[in-house]
Amino acid sequence: MAQLNVIPPAEFDRIRSADLDSNVRLGLLADMCRLNALVAVKRAGSGHLGSSFSAMDVVAFLLFEELNTAELGFDHPDRDVYFSSKGHDVPGLYAVLHALGVIPTERLLRLRRLGGLDGHPDVGVPGIEANSGSLGMGVSKGRGIAWGKRFLGRGGRVVVMTGDGELQEGQNYEAFQGAAQHALSNLTVVVDANDVQSDKPVREIVDLGDLEAKLRAFGWQVASCDGHDFEELRAAFASFREDRPHALIAHTIKGRGVSFMEHPVALREGGGTYRWHAGAPDDAAFERAFAELVRGISERLSAFDLDPLDLELAPNEEVGPGSLEGEPESGAGMRPKTRVTDEYVAEAYGEALLEAAERNPSVVVLDADLASDCRVRGFELAHPDRFVEVGIAEQDLVSMAGGLARQGLLPVVNSFASFLCSRANEQIYNNASEGTRIVYGCHYAGLIPAGPGKSHQSLRDVSLLGALPNMVVAQPVNAEQTREAVRFAIEDTEENVAIRLAIGPSPRRIELPASLEFGRGSALHEGGDALAFAYGPVMLHEALLAAEELAVRGVGLRVVAMPWLNRVDGEWLAELVEPYDDLFVVEDHSPVGALGDTLRRQLPGRPVTVYGVEGWPACGTPAEALRVHGLDGASLAARIGAALRVEERA
Amino acid sequence: MAQLNVIPPAEFDRIRSADLDSNVRLGLLADMCRLNALVAVKRAGSGHLGSSFSAMDVVAFLLFEELNTAELGFDHPDRDVYFSSKGHDVPGLYAVLHALGVIPTERLLRLRRLGGLDGHPDVGVPGIEANSGSLGMGVSKGRGIAWGKRFLGRGGRVVVMTGDGELQEGQNYEAFQGAAQHALSNLTVVVDANDVQSDKPVREIVDLGDLEAKLRAFGWQVASCDGHDFEELRAAFASFREDRPHALIAHTIKGRGVSFMEHPVALREGGGTYRWHAGAPDDAAFERAFAELVRGISERLSAFDLDPLDLELAPNEEVGPGSLEGEPESGAGMRPKTRVTDEYVAEAYGEALLEAAERNPSVVVLDADLASDCRVRGFELAHPDRFVEVGIAEQDLVSMAGGLARQGLLPVVNSFASFLCSRANEQIYNNASEGTRIVYGCHYAGLIPAGPGKSHQSLRDVSLLGALPNMVVAQPVNAEQTREAVRFAIEDTEENVAIRLAIGPSPRRIELPASLEFGRGSALHEGGDALAFAYGPVMLHEALLAAEELAVRGVGLRVVAMPWLNRVDGEWLAELVEPYDDLFVVEDHSPVGALGDTLRRQLPGRPVTVYGVEGWPACGTPAEALRVHGLDGASLAARIGAALRVEERA
Repeated sequence: MAQLNVIPPAEFDRIRSADLDSNVRLGLLADMCRLNALVAVKRAGSGHLGSSFSAMDVVAFLLFEELNTAELGFDHPDRDVYFSSKGHDVPGLYAVLHALGVIPTERLLRLRRLGGLDGHPDVGVPGIEANSGSLGMGVSKGRGIAWGKRFLGRGGRVVVMTGDGELQEGQNYEAFQGAAQHALSNLTVVVDANDVQSDKPVREIVDLGDLEAKLRAFGWQVASCDGHDFEELRAAFASFREDRPHALIAHTIKGRGVSFMEHPVALREGGGTYRWHAGAPDDAAFERAFAELVRGISERLSAFDLDPLDLELAPNEEVGPGSLEGEPESGAGMRPKTRVTDEYVAEAYGEALLEAAERNPSVVVLDADLASDCRVRGFELAHPDRFVEVGIAEQDLVSMAGGLARQGLLPVVNSFASFLCSRANEQIYNNASEGTRIVYGCHYAGLIPAGPGKSHQSLRDVSLLGALPNMVVAQPVNAEQTREAVRFAIEDTEENVAIRLAIGPSPRRIELPASLEFGRGSALHEGGDALAFAYGPVMLHEALLAAEELAVRGVGLRVVAMPWLNRVDGEWLAELVEPYDDLFVVEDHSPVGALGDTLRRQLPGRPVTVYGVEGWPACGTPAEALRVHGLDGASLAARIGAALRVEERA
Repeated sequence: MAQLNVIPPAEFDRIRSADLDSNVRLGLLADMCRLNALVAVKRAGSGHLGSSFSAMDVVAFLLFEELNTAELGFDHPDRDVYFSSKGHDVPGLYAVLHALGVIPTERLLRLRRLGGLDGHPDVGVPGIEANSGSLGMGVSKGRGIAWGKRFLGRGGRVVVMTGDGELQEGQNYEAFQGAAQHALSNLTVVVDANDVQSDKPVREIVDLGDLEAKLRAFGWQVASCDGHDFEELRAAFASFREDRPHALIAHTIKGRGVSFMEHPVALREGGGTYRWHAGAPDDAAFERAFAELVRGISERLSAFDLDPLDLELAPNEEVGPGSLEGEPESGAGMRPKTRVTDEYVAEAYGEALLEAAERNPSVVVLDADLASDCRVRGFELAHPDRFVEVGIAEQDLVSMAGGLARQGLLPVVNSFASFLCSRANEQIYNNASEGTRIVYGCHYAGLIPAGPGKSHQSLRDVSLLGALPNMVVAQPVNAEQTREAVRFAIEDTEENVAIRLAIGPSPRRIELPASLEFGRGSALHEGGDALAFAYGPVMLHEALLAAEELAVRGVGLRVVAMPWLNRVDGEWLAELVEPYDDLFVVEDHSPVGALGDTLRRQLPGRPVTVYGVEGWPACGTPAEALRVHGLDGASLAARIGAALRVEERA
């Protein structure tokens, strides 16, 4: 990648104070922020441009003009509070906060890096008012802030941005009705109505119908406008005078500002799917987008007799060594160029469902607007009659599956583990209590990728499902085992099965000595001094690295791949652990409630040392996140070595 | 209580085949079912009459006339499927199923008893099509069944009953939009619009506004009618011909059929609160209601020259011995007559919040339509400005609290543990990730009361919260400790605190030797042979019973009340357990993910035997449920005795 250039804050100050028509100024500032957001995402290697760009004009209007926040500062109790509920658009917001001097340039360029800027909003970052990224919570939280302001006699409005696809989440309607009941006139919701959700048009996923009528029926004052027209935005906000909450439906273009990312063009070019929702553009696309934005900005500067743009060279990034450095993250733009099913458990999962569909006519696959990420797009195309798209609505997803199961079908439910296991937890319980059988595909599980941040990192999923009486939780380590796990879930058990899936490839091809056996794992590395259990491609790779390093130091660590996280064959286990005094579990899960606890229950009286993700998961590159949690191979070798008192023995 | 009389199935057969006008016949059948539901609830000692009675005419119309289910039978694939999403109204449905010969009289009279009829719908009962009782899931599940029928080419419609208050749950709107997207014309939702939710008018809790407009905006064909007028019901169903899902808003009267339970009267008499939502009437009210129903039925039979009603004497119930027999359950009608704060942790909780409000102006209390059950009605009355009612909307409840906390307030969030910890789990995670501080009042936790059934029994709550980095989960054992726990949560910690609360009183006054110390418990019974940990008034009573029984057999069991379920003072623990070889944990929680696992993590190498609730929780009386899970004092004494090989040692 060529060196990156970024627009420094001084340039924003120059434009903000220039003698320009307000609309021209806002347009310039917005495009300058688009450019910086593009650079930040390119540097990060991932991030959400489509949504950042569609919302950018609204955000620029709000923070550069409409709201008092820039003037009062982000600590003032009377400040207006703006945040985005969808959170995908945070690179755009970071760019605005950078333009306002709230975030320094160095930090803007550390998007999705340890100690930099989280991939989804986090209040630890200056100017961020709410953690989001788990969709559909923002209006509720905004109404809490608005209620609090009114109760405390504080000034300032609360403005919450939502996506249009995001309005499929039912919690929004809870919040709409509650805010109306409380007549929260200091609350405004702006819907970034860009017509596209993750990679398809909203109307194709789940149509919102007459959104204005809906919001009015919920008791809100509603206006609509062109979300890229500052005059219309100004008029809409000026119209919000009624003593009740206000909603603005801002009609926007996803990817606005870069011609080939704008959704009417991009959908056409993508054959109906939108590829700029998530993921960084490759070098060519980046150069094209960057040049287009610079040209547009420069032409306007020149037309208004302003000096040309003074770009600043971004310093090169220091990239530390790390076993998982550069692992691609999810997102349409980041799909691996060739199918590497031997390494990607996610790809194998999608293929296994296709195979299962051939053998079992009862299999129905459900999706909540993550068909690409969950690798069920192939199923959708092959079996449209057996594919159910529910939109961004995890609770409905799960309860609908319950209904399908009551009709004797075998539903396979898909979402990210972090959303599925937590947001729809009661629905999973309710289904399980009916004694039907459902397969839950829990994608994107674990610490990695660590770029999206804590809303997307799933480190509690096993604990959230483990106490269900009839739920098996399993995580396969390679493609073949993934196929076996799907077959087990669909054909070989009377229980519900949650299949925990890593999204990335394993950095190494992990060969298993035997096929999947219920309740049993298999040894991947021999050693006579201690025994370590691990699961999934990420942690098994790190455990193997640790074993290899320990071997060099003369310590034999046997590494067992244990795909069953809450079911253990007791006889097998007893025999396995018998020769060892020291047992370790390495897991990309909280140390509470996963395999470590399962083994302790099975092995009364045997100490089991668990290395899991303590505290909140770090946001950063895979290597950064593993290292900071002491879960990379080198750290594990050191920790296990210390526990075994290797130095003392040497 | 006097002996109970019930209407036998033969009487229903007589009326069903009598030469009567359809509307007269349905009216008679409905009132006869009301009578039997009243008797079943009286016998049970708890249950939901208000909702059973408001929905009864609709249910009678559906199952005696409109649907094909009675004709085809409940196993036929082409049958119409009817179920209630709210589930409270299940005594009424049971009465109809009894009238149809699906449920025998003996079983109808075993409502909320082991092996009888669950307090909320469960598919294990004949004629029950879906598990419900956790509100707002039914439309999703119904659309799953409808989609399944269409996919499988099966005949039959799906009719789902919802409450009006229940429509505050956001999941309904997810389901509405999805069903419209799929044009599920074989799906009909009937809203039992009785204007009252648990004990207050819907418009006072969270108004639904123009419900017809809302449902139309979601793309449904909508009709409204008088839900007690069979002609109007018939016409409404006949009008549902459009190729999309249908909704009928049936305007009804809560408690319909018994003059003093009808909500216009009852609200007036109750000073604005409705007392017949939950709980059995006392003897006087029962006799009055029974006589009124019998009179009304008899008058009509006589007017149409039919023989008088032939009532059958209900056999006396065999009540087994049990330490918790007769413990009152929740519900406005069942509130203890005098405040016994020394025994009720729930009452003490409400009082402690009032005290906290005096000391701390930041305390704000939130409720999701369970103000009476959660004992925060007193707070609402004393501090209306600091009380937030969100309606039946747990996700909004929690995220709104997050917003309040971001304004520096200290929100105390209340709902039943089963709903709060599971349905709003992701929202709790999201709040916790912001580093704010929130107190979660997790009411109705544990196995007891066991009458409502598994949707209300919370046996996973500790596991659902335990992996959060900054969440303390605690359960106090008596009133004083409850006050201490509230003070701790509000004043003495930087963490979030979930306070797990039992709803019933302890059968004994449990005196604690010391005040609450973080991470430490206190011994309630001395003994030198083994050590048992327990928590909460229910399980500590049983553990003490066990210790007393073991003492008679010469075995010394030390019983430690341990209020901290996921935090332990390691030093204290090490010293405590040091003298003992055998450690036990007794918990009314799944054996997965609660105190047992916490102690195992803290005590590597020490075997810990956990007696928790295995499998699905039993529905029944407290004594039945405890016994079937082996958690009553006698069973625990036997289990612990066996584990200690007491017989062998003797």
